[in-house]
Amino acid sequence: MNEDKAALEKLQGFIKQAKKILLSTHINPDGDGIGSGLALLGKLTKMGKKVDFINRDPLPMIYKFLPNSAQVKNTKKITGKYDLAIVLECPELERNGGIIDYTQQSKVTVNLDHHLGNTMYGDLNIVDPKAAAVGEQLYRIMKGLCWEIDKDAATCIYTAIVTDTGSFRYSNTSPETHIIASELLRAGADPEHISSQVYSSTEQATKLMYQMLSKLKVEGRMGYSYLTKKMFSDTGAIESETDNFINSIRAIKTVETAMLFKETGPSSVKVSFRSKGTADVNIIARGFKGGGHKHAAGAVIHLPMAKAIKAVLAQVRKYYRLKRVK
Amino acid sequence: MNEDKAALEKLQGFIKQAKKILLSTHINPDGDGIGSGLALLGKLTKMGKKVDFINRDPLPMIYKFLPNSAQVKNTKKITGKYDLAIVLECPELERNGGIIDYTQQSKVTVNLDHHLGNTMYGDLNIVDPKAAAVGEQLYRIMKGLCWEIDKDAATCIYTAIVTDTGSFRYSNTSPETHIIASELLRAGADPEHISSQVYSSTEQATKLMYQMLSKLKVEGRMGYSYLTKKMFSDTGAIESETDNFINSIRAIKTVETAMLFKETGPSSVKVSFRSKGTADVNIIARGFKGGGHKHAAGAVIHLPMAKAIKAVLAQVRKYYRLKRVK
Repeated sequence: MNEDKAALEKLQGFIKQAKKILLSTHINPDGDGIGSGLALLGKLTKMGKKVDFINRDPLPMIYKFLPNSAQVKNTKKITGKYDLAIVLECPELERNGGIIDYTQQSKVTVNLDHHLGNTMYGDLNIVDPKAAAVGEQLYRIMKGLCWEIDKDAATCIYTAIVTDTGSFRYSNTSPETHIIASELLRAGADPEHISSQVYSSTEQATKLMYQMLSKLKVEGRMGYSYLTKKMFSDTGAIESETDNFINSIRAIKTVETAMLFKETGPSSVKVSFRSKGTADVNIIARGFKGGGHKHAAGAVIHLPMAKAIKAVLAQVRKYYRLKRVK
Repeated sequence: MNEDKAALEKLQGFIKQAKKILLSTHINPDGDGIGSGLALLGKLTKMGKKVDFINRDPLPMIYKFLPNSAQVKNTKKITGKYDLAIVLECPELERNGGIIDYTQQSKVTVNLDHHLGNTMYGDLNIVDPKAAAVGEQLYRIMKGLCWEIDKDAATCIYTAIVTDTGSFRYSNTSPETHIIASELLRAGADPEHISSQVYSSTEQATKLMYQMLSKLKVEGRMGYSYLTKKMFSDTGAIESETDNFINSIRAIKTVETAMLFKETGPSSVKVSFRSKGTADVNIIARGFKGGGHKHAAGAVIHLPMAKAIKAVLAQVRKYYRLKRVK
């Protein structure tokens, strides 16, 4: 843990001196960045600070239930000047999408993150790769600074933790994560309400899921399906609703490498990979100039759907042949 | 909480005097009944007891990873005699499927359950409707009796809690549930491994899910679909694989009352209800001689599929009409 006394005192000093504070999280913001940012926004606003929470990409619909979410803005370029910027969940400043020049536009930058390999770009770096979520760090910071955690803050921080731990399912969930969750429930976070928002779907998305499953193919340890533009328009679902679709392919016991192909243009297909066990989909994605991690990666293929699927399957089969040889 | 000192002492006395112990849970056993039973089985066996864990229905595949799961048996009629029977998660004895005549075949019966409306059929009734799961009660019992909770017991109890709270998402999740989860992780329960087993699927089940979604209907605040025997045989999926299917109906934002109808015979349909918000499906299920909780209930309808759906929908519509009047 890195939220030691010296760091907390430094942070407190920065906040005390600041009138205008910027909060910002990474591109394609997730529940941890949004939840943690909104918890901070609520608290700092109550302290009388002028707070902006600005990201490059829009707030995903599923987080609109969070208190103060209407105050989250997005822009390609921040023009204002700030006394203090708190950058949330960005292992390097570029993850922020280059929307601000911190050295020019902010007197002081605080880097609050839980990624391994954080580049320590802040004037103050509160980085704890063991934290399940920035929300977990923020909880400890707020307790350390004796800030009251009210129902709104608890709701935001709980959302941050729940989304980054997959409802306490991922391996980053520690005994302490559950202790914090317990405290957040006591402070008023409503687990059922929050989960029903965060994991909610629409009738349109459910129909698209059905279409995707109707095209599902399982071949050896590979499982794959696809989504065409027509399937989107037939059902009325939107792309951001399909983020978790691939998990229902990956959940199949015999599937080690799951793939979902999404048509993005007449000759453009985005393929997502998810794997488990020893299968390294990062290697496969890199072969198509994409990348990611061992168990989650992606790439864009400049081919029509049928050819894109053929090309990727050929590579995955090759990967398994080589893997067997090794 | 009902695991008071007197109850624990009585339970300890029963166990001390017993050589042959029967554990049993309800028909269509779930993670709570199986996990709690296996935690008890492990502990009682270590104490030198002869323990049988017998249910009417087979162990669902997803629980085969649990320690000692190979010892779980199923039968239509238990013929043995026991010094002590511990009945898990059965609000009334009949939920057990009538596989044993407790008054004849067991000297003493302990009723360990967390359902409202439990009929208190045991010689000792440890019933706590506020407990999220029997696993939660069992954790407190084991702590109260100073039984060590080793990795195996922690894995079983964690599975019980995770399945009955939907990964800590349902409203039955309390601050204490998270404190217990924290302790179980410390004792060696592996959240990622357990979740990957409990939430794993098969190709057959995924195909059945697709068939179910193809029949999905959303009408006002109701969402429903059905599974026929033919759909099961066409896909090769089995009933226990469909436990979570209803959640993808419940997840739809506009759906408040989700229903899934499963054909169990030519004139027999099992209907599951899941709700959110203020909708109380227990009331609806009770109208069909079923029951459960406010947000999760079930009933068996002795009608062919089409008529069963019609009858239930009529009741749900009526429920909403009456609710509006109130």
